[in-house]
Amino acid sequence: MESYKIPKKSVERLSIYKRILKVIMDAGFTTVSSRELAERAGLNSAQVRKDLVYFGQFGTPGMGYQVSMLHRAITKIMGLHKKIPVALTGVGNLGQALLAYPGFKERGFIIEAIFDNDHEKVGKKKNGLKILDEKNISSEIKKKKVRVGIIATPPSAAQFAANKLIEGGIKGILNFAPIELKVPSGITVVNVALCEKLEMLSYYLSKRKLL
Amino acid sequence: MESYKIPKKSVERLSIYKRILKVIMDAGFTTVSSRELAERAGLNSAQVRKDLVYFGQFGTPGMGYQVSMLHRAITKIMGLHKKIPVALTGVGNLGQALLAYPGFKERGFIIEAIFDNDHEKVGKKKNGLKILDEKNISSEIKKKKVRVGIIATPPSAAQFAANKLIEGGIKGILNFAPIELKVPSGITVVNVALCEKLEMLSYYLSKRKLL
Repeated sequence: MESYKIPKKSVERLSIYKRILKVIMDAGFTTVSSRELAERAGLNSAQVRKDLVYFGQFGTPGMGYQVSMLHRAITKIMGLHKKIPVALTGVGNLGQALLAYPGFKERGFIIEAIFDNDHEKVGKKKNGLKILDEKNISSEIKKKKVRVGIIATPPSAAQFAANKLIEGGIKGILNFAPIELKVPSGITVVNVALCEKLEMLSYYLSKRKLL
Repeated sequence: MESYKIPKKSVERLSIYKRILKVIMDAGFTTVSSRELAERAGLNSAQVRKDLVYFGQFGTPGMGYQVSMLHRAITKIMGLHKKIPVALTGVGNLGQALLAYPGFKERGFIIEAIFDNDHEKVGKKKNGLKILDEKNISSEIKKKKVRVGIIATPPSAAQFAANKLIEGGIKGILNFAPIELKVPSGITVVNVALCEKLEMLSYYLSKRKLL
């Protein structure tokens, strides 16, 4: 199966399966059916089986999946089995929230360098890291072999940060700024839109005439 | 068409169409084809047409969609044409980032009350709002007729905040805390997982052997 045909949504659901498998594993279970996985994920079991088949031959009909094996396999497929050095640009409220968020470290994303363009902040420490001047992003991340950049700057500073990250050799950007970044081909940008989920909630409440 | 059959992903994509339509409208265009909408959204045009048909009869074959009409219709379908009073619990870094985020207000979500359990914070002001004691969530939101709650507390405080919000009459919660909230039926919870998008990025980089 050619990997570029895997739907984006199936990739997104891998995260969800991984999280559910962890819960099941921690509860002491060793096998799980596609139906149980589906129920916990709010999907149907055919969808779960179809998603997983994109990534390999897991599970046995009538037996289900081996929990820890599937968890390990998904972790590896997602590249989450190794530590990934990350740079964060923008140490405002959102940047500080991300710095303090345990989920990144738990998944192997280690924030190794933090940058801001505010000279009041540069030189100070946050979560044990010294805030560096945004101007030096490219040289610093080359030094630290950073592979992923997170942009948590205001929209007006986001493109500059992206350019500097790319100059420093970064291939992947997680962008929290509400603008469409312009990047050369070969650079993967994943946008996080904080409002989209609130809009979804609004839709569901509106449909039930609760707004 | 019975509305409960609309796929969650089609609802999620409404947000994306709305955002693209706004850009096209601001650029001065009056009509748009499903192909152009699809290209800008990174989808195929059949998917766009299929999504929109769930919500109404829009567009004319060969003519495309009327930009402002479709934008208005989607806004209304999503319940975003009116102001929605919102309560925020947890005024830490993430809460403050959300308070400062212009996207909520632009979409009509007006944060009217903010709560924290830290007595050092209670009584102080943030973005023009006084931080209130979490204990008083239910009475305060009843007073202010708040319809939506945002939870930006640490995981350990999230369930308490949810209970208080529900006690105060809230039907919808946007949850940023990385835990599964227990809520009675009739309450809609939408979880925002800050890590999922980073995991997606990791997957794409990993597949290209860039990690």
